Amino acid sequence: MLAVHGSYCHGEDQLIIQGCSGSAQMAEPRDTVVLAYSGGLDTSCILVWLKEQGYTVIAFLANIGQKEDFDAARKKALALGAEKVYIQDVCREFVEEFIWPAVQANALYEDRYLLGTALARPCIARRLVLVAKEQGARYIAHGATGKGNDQVRFELSCYALCPSIKVIAPWRMPEFYQRFPGRRELMEYAQKHGIPVPVTPKAPWSMDENLMHISYEAGILENPKNRAPLDLYTKTCDPATSPDVPDELEIEFEKGVPVKVTNTRNGVTHRSALELFMYLNDIAGKHGVGRIDIVENRFVGMKSRGIYETPAGTILYHAHLDIEAFTMDREVRKIKQGLSLKFSELVYNGFWYSPECEFLQHCIARSQQAVAGTVRVSVFKGQVYVLGRESPHSLYNEELVSMDVQGDYEPADATGFININALRLKEYHRLQSKVSTKQDE
Amino acid sequence: MLAVHGSYCHGEDQLIIQGCSGSAQMAEPRDTVVLAYSGGLDTSCILVWLKEQGYTVIAFLANIGQKEDFDAARKKALALGAEKVYIQDVCREFVEEFIWPAVQANALYEDRYLLGTALARPCIARRLVLVAKEQGARYIAHGATGKGNDQVRFELSCYALCPSIKVIAPWRMPEFYQRFPGRRELMEYAQKHGIPVPVTPKAPWSMDENLMHISYEAGILENPKNRAPLDLYTKTCDPATSPDVPDELEIEFEKGVPVKVTNTRNGVTHRSALELFMYLNDIAGKHGVGRIDIVENRFVGMKSRGIYETPAGTILYHAHLDIEAFTMDREVRKIKQGLSLKFSELVYNGFWYSPECEFLQHCIARSQQAVAGTVRVSVFKGQVYVLGRESPHSLYNEELVSMDVQGDYEPADATGFININALRLKEYHRLQSKVSTKQDE
Amino acid sequence: MLAVHGSYCHGEDQLIIQGCSGSAQMAEPRDTVVLAYSGGLDTSCILVWLKEQGYTVIAFLANIGQKEDFDAARKKALALGAEKVYIQDVCREFVEEFIWPAVQANALYEDRYLLGTALARPCIARRLVLVAKEQGARYIAHGATGKGNDQVRFELSCYALCPSIKVIAPWRMPEFYQRFPGRRELMEYAQKHGIPVPVTPKAPWSMDENLMHISYEAGILENPKNRAPLDLYTKTCDPATSPDVPDELEIEFEKGVPVKVTNTRNGVTHRSALELFMYLNDIAGKHGVGRIDIVENRFVGMKSRGIYETPAGTILYHAHLDIEAFTMDREVRKIKQGLSLKFSELVYNGFWYSPECEFLQHCIARSQQAVAGTVRVSVFKGQVYVLGRESPHSLYNEELVSMDVQGDYEPADATGFININALRLKEYHRLQSKVSTKQDE
Amino acid sequence: MLAVHGSYCHGEDQLIIQGCSGSAQMAEPRDTVVLAYSGGLDTSCILVWLKEQGYTVIAFLANIGQKEDFDAARKKALALGAEKVYIQDVCREFVEEFIWPAVQANALYEDRYLLGTALARPCIARRLVLVAKEQGARYIAHGATGKGNDQVRFELSCYALCPSIKVIAPWRMPEFYQRFPGRRELMEYAQKHGIPVPVTPKAPWSMDENLMHISYEAGILENPKNRAPLDLYTKTCDPATSPDVPDELEIEFEKGVPVKVTNTRNGVTHRSALELFMYLNDIAGKHGVGRIDIVENRFVGMKSRGIYETPAGTILYHAHLDIEAFTMDREVRKIKQGLSLKFSELVYNGFWYSPECEFLQHCIARSQQAVAGTVRVSVFKGQVYVLGRESPHSLYNEELVSMDVQGDYEPADATGFININALRLKEYHRLQSKVSTKQDE
Repeated sequence: MLAVHGSYCHGEDQLIIQGCSGSAQMAEPRDTVVLAYSGGLDTSCILVWLKEQGYTVIAFLANIGQKEDFDAARKKALALGAEKVYIQDVCREFVEEFIWPAVQANALYEDRYLLGTALARPCIARRLVLVAKEQGARYIAHGATGKGNDQVRFELSCYALCPSIKVIAPWRMPEFYQRFPGRRELMEYAQKHGIPVPVTPKAPWSMDENLMHISYEAGILENPKNRAPLDLYTKTCDPATSPDVPDELEIEFEKGVPVKVTNTRNGVTHRSALELFMYLNDIAGKHGVGRIDIVENRFVGMKSRGIYETPAGTILYHAHLDIEAFTMDREVRKIKQGLSLKFSELVYNGFWYSPECEFLQHCIARSQQAVAGTVRVSVFKGQVYVLGRESPHSLYNEELVSMDVQGDYEPADATGFININALRLKEYHRLQSKVSTKQDE
Repeated sequence: MLAVHGSYCHGEDQLIIQGCSGSAQMAEPRDTVVLAYSGGLDTSCILVWLKEQGYTVIAFLANIGQKEDFDAARKKALALGAEKVYIQDVCREFVEEFIWPAVQANALYEDRYLLGTALARPCIARRLVLVAKEQGARYIAHGATGKGNDQVRFELSCYALCPSIKVIAPWRMPEFYQRFPGRRELMEYAQKHGIPVPVTPKAPWSMDENLMHISYEAGILENPKNRAPLDLYTKTCDPATSPDVPDELEIEFEKGVPVKVTNTRNGVTHRSALELFMYLNDIAGKHGVGRIDIVENRFVGMKSRGIYETPAGTILYHAHLDIEAFTMDREVRKIKQGLSLKFSELVYNGFWYSPECEFLQHCIARSQQAVAGTVRVSVFKGQVYVLGRESPHSLYNEELVSMDVQGDYEPADATGFININALRLKEYHRLQSKVSTKQDE
Repeated sequence: MLAVHGSYCHGEDQLIIQGCSGSAQMAEPRDTVVLAYSGGLDTSCILVWLKEQGYTVIAFLANIGQKEDFDAARKKALALGAEKVYIQDVCREFVEEFIWPAVQANALYEDRYLLGTALARPCIARRLVLVAKEQGARYIAHGATGKGNDQVRFELSCYALCPSIKVIAPWRMPEFYQRFPGRRELMEYAQKHGIPVPVTPKAPWSMDENLMHISYEAGILENPKNRAPLDLYTKTCDPATSPDVPDELEIEFEKGVPVKVTNTRNGVTHRSALELFMYLNDIAGKHGVGRIDIVENRFVGMKSRGIYETPAGTILYHAHLDIEAFTMDREVRKIKQGLSLKFSELVYNGFWYSPECEFLQHCIARSQQAVAGTVRVSVFKGQVYVLGRESPHSLYNEELVSMDVQGDYEPADATGFININALRLKEYHRLQSKVSTKQDE
Repeated sequence: MLAVHGSYCHGEDQLIIQGCSGSAQMAEPRDTVVLAYSGGLDTSCILVWLKEQGYTVIAFLANIGQKEDFDAARKKALALGAEKVYIQDVCREFVEEFIWPAVQANALYEDRYLLGTALARPCIARRLVLVAKEQGARYIAHGATGKGNDQVRFELSCYALCPSIKVIAPWRMPEFYQRFPGRRELMEYAQKHGIPVPVTPKAPWSMDENLMHISYEAGILENPKNRAPLDLYTKTCDPATSPDVPDELEIEFEKGVPVKVTNTRNGVTHRSALELFMYLNDIAGKHGVGRIDIVENRFVGMKSRGIYETPAGTILYHAHLDIEAFTMDREVRKIKQGLSLKFSELVYNGFWYSPECEFLQHCIARSQQAVAGTVRVSVFKGQVYVLGRESPHSLYNEELVSMDVQGDYEPADATGFININALRLKEYHRLQSKVSTKQDE
């Protein structure tokens, strides 16, 4: 059994997998590869192709909340010649160790993207590395393309956790991608090697789904002017046909993460991380919450267009923002906001397991110590409306702010405050006038 | 006539009003005050009170898009003893010189507030100063409270534009606020001095409206847990009863500001800044777009709760974000995002006329040179959905990003890119393993 | 005895002094004031003046490393009518709890000032508050001027630690400063009230000294063009006449703070914080290290000119910078650098005891966990030269960087790295060319 | 003749070289390469090796201020078979277009490195590209190693200026570096191909020199503990033996760049950019100013140790910092400081010709509009001491800051200023006390 040092939680300590240093000699068998297997056409072909290249292939499939027939996938992988198949449910750790830190950070890439795919990759990669270590495999393979972010996220995660691992990325290897320049060649290869070919025609775009979100890109979506087809969406209802009555939720936070969700319409309550997150997915999905259509900047330097659905994440983004503003000091918030911007960029770029991301996660978690309380939200027709909030730790002081009560506040102090703040502006005006006068002469 | 040096537009040059240096000797009459008059009970009482104190009062009322009977206000001010009344329509300059820079910046205070009130204050203050200069008045008075942001915004603007001006803020003067501890005393004073008293009962909250937004705060809203009453909103329809059919708009940008709006459902088109902004207000208002309920941090150091409606501003925020992401280089965007955060804070705090805000406005405008193109949005049930975008200046390269075309892109390069990025992470792992191993011994 | 909750050290927890909430009822005697007494003319006059106003005065004098006849000061205060005199040696806590966090941060205000005075103020203020609490005093008084930073630093510290304290700042009270418009009036007052008047003529500038530094400002230094007189300096020798032979030191760090200093020329070694800091002061002073002449921006909005000597602090700044660069990951360092900039500004402005400064101190301390090792420096003729460094935790990898060894490094990877980084630049060129071509047409 | 669009100066417009788009068809001859030739052993061997590979080689050597026998280098290149040799003096443009923007920015990488090499690379690369375009060459080759920063700086510059250029980097090509694993093999190859071999033994470190600085690294310096030999330095005297009398200089700035230098000891004055820079090099070199020994983080992710001499740059860094602080508003300075940090990082990493660097250069230049005046410095024994400064645009107000004059300043305002700033801290204390009290129960 593999020893994992350090805790996974809240960035206190980075995962250190022993015996992974670059120079370490590793155990046989030396030609085993753990393949991040999805059950789809691409990774099925890769599985067979890797065997052709002489590798022993162990298929690994994470259940991270995607819709998938895991049993069928297991059978398929074995049928294609996988030595072993590992299917592991990582949903709980995905929520607790990856989504929660993102909620604490209000993580948002380029002002819009809630990082659904980016958060899933390091969660999967960690498991890939653990399986590789257990099995003494020196190689990890994945089916991510050569132009995207996911290749980076997978590989940086693997290398950071275990520098001696070698990653095989067939879509970047000429011997692979020249052999399979298009989908037709893949299909032919599949038919030739007994790989089951999907019976339904492929959607004219690609998708990637997990518990937090689903992304749609490529194909007809590559033209950024093209409107997404109405039937594209799978995780949220069309707001045009969503219920005409809102759901109202009370979301309770402790240390910046949700610990309880109650639907005030029917009293339904959830407390565990995974359950409450899934429940929020249900409610948000039902009301069409969490759709965006954006152009974003990939780490490799190109702009791409993506359409995303992030139902629960969208509710939590709004609710956390609110409870944080309510309980956190203004200046701490400003500093934390800067850290979160950086954190979001790092997560997007695949640096989850980096010293800087670990550092940021620690600092952000620190900022959340008193982020506690309850936010009431209404979920309706694609929107999340904050209705009110309360907290035992709030820095909001109703008496102080009241227009009807003077309280300890001395209005005359504001005069001095303004005058001193004006000092610098007056000096600047003085100088500008001088310059301006001179120019007029 | 007053000479105003420098252009107002796009931050190229700050407004310099000559003859305003602190030490300058000013013309008589020395006891004239220009009052920022709203027509309401408070500033009416202040008008009379200022006269009681021996000042000659000139009432100034900006038409900045609020619903108001300006003619009645004029008559009222004159009846109360104002020497003169100036009512000036500043709507166009508000849009072009204040809202547009905020659109360019994607200005957002504390991740949520679009700065509707904060942007209006320097627009009004500039006019106040110009009137004071024209009239040879040494004083400016306003009715803002002593706990709020608006006093700061008004006064910093006035002092920055004309350091020799003296501001009278009655709500911070003990002789005033001790005389009028509550609304009852104001009413009594009004009745005694023939000041018309509103016949309708005052709403249990306070409001401030302009072309861009309306704010609701104080009163029953001071308890942050209390839900806003459904009948509070005045600028947007309730999404529950808003139309069941979306409007779709094409918004064209040049240099980061909208230059044309077309409703694709009916072909209605607007091109001038003011008209297109008002049209967006109509459309957004009709569909319930732009409501928020937040707790924010005031510059004076307290948290307050505010409810805002910003219809057109919300559409433009989303549309500009999209066209900017489409046309701006990733790294420029990141730098500009940091500048915008600072810009938003400065605007909120009242530093519109400051060297730093002028500097930021210039830099942000520079970043917008190629932010041009058209965004198509759907406005529906409280939401703005981006549907697509196109631009002659886009950095989006459909061929480069395509999954089906290799283009100039060499997938093998990504391997090197990842490996070099992994170098630092591997080194860190090496060190951590060493430390960890040592600790195990 | 006063209960102090929380540790002082390393920002882990902010000092909370119980029973200080604004609304708390406090014990009699209600008219006792604790005066931050310096023994000089100003605070002696203030002492007598406060008694005139009816206060019971307790004099507090911190020994924070300044040159002072503390015994004489005690006698003087008692002779002038102080009820009690407290003289407390705070040198050790000044080094360990205030200077050390600044060393960890490489704290530097406006790229040059090592914050010597700014760090001392919260150290003194904390003691003032503790004495006030012990003595049941409701007031604290100080002799800082109304234009400077120190008034802000003292008072924000006092209010943050004990909101119910009232601060008396005579130099901001018209009844005081109008009575004493100049030094002559102070002298007259002194003579009248038996306050000993300094026999030596006052230097034509003011000074403030502590263990870390001495500042010179005002008087003839107010003209920023005037060169500082050669005989002004008191903590460092003139580099023109300093020894012609350098001293070489080995400075060992743990967690970002120095834990051992060895003079390799003579083997002298110091390990305790206070002793090693004082020794560094000796060595740096002997070699003329640590003089600067700057114009800085005060928090109240004006520029001022100051001349500072910070001998030990200057050595530690250079040494810490070096060991940090040697042991800290590049990206962590960049984030930490931003935090330190903010930290320095906060310390300068007097916000030591603020939620944001506490947060930053925590984050910065976290970044220092592996900042350990030894730096060798030469101290000579006003300069500190880093000669070399070593560390058990270094991220420096001699084999990796070597030009003579390839190691694990694959040069071809750099090609991919460069090409991918170039992608964005090429896209930008493509667009610029298009625009440029169009403009030519 | 090649048309170059846009100005080179002050970042107003990026250099656009037409006809360089990636997809453009280029003129024959297709196998010509422009080699960045240094005259040394490495690039001489590369020249011959490129010819072996079938390329027509044009040698390009920039005179960027290094000590070099350019005539001998020309002859040598021709003798080795170069088709043509271009030797171009770029000193003036190096100072005006690359060093000056760095002076404006106070550019400093990782708090210490003045970027001497990093600034030279884009200056040279631009010329390389221009020659390649003129000559119709499709290739550029350089002799930079595969582990360093210079390869990145050269190539990103080339690709940004002319995307269709192909770069040949022999030290990253296995067929080259495996053939020449060490210096011995290079020597053998040289002897075999009639390449003149240096008669003096190579220094046990590598050097790179230009007008701004010289760097020493590798060889015996790779051990970061090793002290640099005393005889290593070539651009500055040993402070131990430098003159015992300082030089005093008056440096006049306009728009943030030096426009005049006067030695007040002898009246020597220089006004042109190049001449005054060279004169500052002389003076600084004579007094041993500008030596540093650092460990830095390379862009490729490894730490390296470098020793640098930057004589004139060090004087200008201190002088510019001073005049900037004197003339620039505090808050503008803070924003500009953040931009400069980013600028320095970009320059170090090789992104001179990037949209973000162009943007930053523009913003920084904008901040320098009023950075004008004269700084007096003393240069002595390795140190630069600022003695005083004056400026027609200073925001320093001697009357305002004076301790002896109250001026327009109202001390009572500071009370309000402090109290309002304390508000937030008191609120925080209130909450902490509550929490703390609870925990005690």
